[in-house]
Amino acid sequence: MDKGYIHVYTGNGKGKTTAAFGLALRALCAGKKVFIGQFVKGMEYSELKIVDYFKNVEIHQFGRGCFIRNQPSKEDYEAARLGLGKSKEAMLSNQYDVIVLDEINIALFFGLVTLEEVLDLIKLKPEKTELILTGRYAPKEIIECADLVTEMKEVKHYYTKGVMARKGIEY
Amino acid sequence: MDKGYIHVYTGNGKGKTTAAFGLALRALCAGKKVFIGQFVKGMEYSELKIVDYFKNVEIHQFGRGCFIRNQPSKEDYEAARLGLGKSKEAMLSNQYDVIVLDEINIALFFGLVTLEEVLDLIKLKPEKTELILTGRYAPKEIIECADLVTEMKEVKHYYTKGVMARKGIEY
Repeated sequence: MDKGYIHVYTGNGKGKTTAAFGLALRALCAGKKVFIGQFVKGMEYSELKIVDYFKNVEIHQFGRGCFIRNQPSKEDYEAARLGLGKSKEAMLSNQYDVIVLDEINIALFFGLVTLEEVLDLIKLKPEKTELILTGRYAPKEIIECADLVTEMKEVKHYYTKGVMARKGIEY
Repeated sequence: MDKGYIHVYTGNGKGKTTAAFGLALRALCAGKKVFIGQFVKGMEYSELKIVDYFKNVEIHQFGRGCFIRNQPSKEDYEAARLGLGKSKEAMLSNQYDVIVLDEINIALFFGLVTLEEVLDLIKLKPEKTELILTGRYAPKEIIECADLVTEMKEVKHYYTKGVMARKGIEY
């Protein structure tokens, strides 16, 4: 099997989590095994139903049912802690072809996890596993250790027109 | 039902088609109906198997089994022509919640379709349909008529390290 690489999808534009799920979909269609851990998020996203369609995928949420507005709460820290543990287990199990750590950069940004913790987690990546890290504000240390980095740059966004998040499109 | 918008995913980074498929996945998981037309591409991508897992999706390829290296061939033009026709039918049928025209910007770039043809096609979008256009080199006229535009900017890519496209990750 091929060597696995580290991808980072960052930037302020729409498409980061979406691309990670697209990649998960492609991998699943190719018979690969996928682990998805969503940091910060705990909402009922439509894409969580991916487990009803594919048997080789696991998805876990390590966040509360709402976005962090100002300061993270104790529950946010605890959820991220759980996320770190579960992600570490996923790495060490060496049973996933693709591991997605969705919004891990945002968990970092809010100080829910430390840069050292994330870098240590990345080091546990099994040779053949593809690791996908998403979220705005990827710090330069994460970008440095990645093999592929795409910045999703917002050129135009309809939220500036007052369009709210819609089921099946945004969540 | 909500009004549908026009998205453009362009730029030189990895994640455009992947994000379009991620969006298709989210929409399908939410019970929506999806049409995917792939311009220029005719290769055996893993993600084509999406039809084996979801019943509400249709996928068509309007390209040959290889990339256009220099000049498009007669077959490339014919395939793109077929693509325009099929995409027009999909729009007019008014039965899809999401329509993806993958790599349509590349078809434009190679002159397989004209800007006027694409703009005319966009005008056929039913009010409630979400339209997703992907591919590098989106011209300003397409960007102008879109509601959401993300530029996937390559910050780092592993192909510079000699990594070839891999099944389940790139295709």
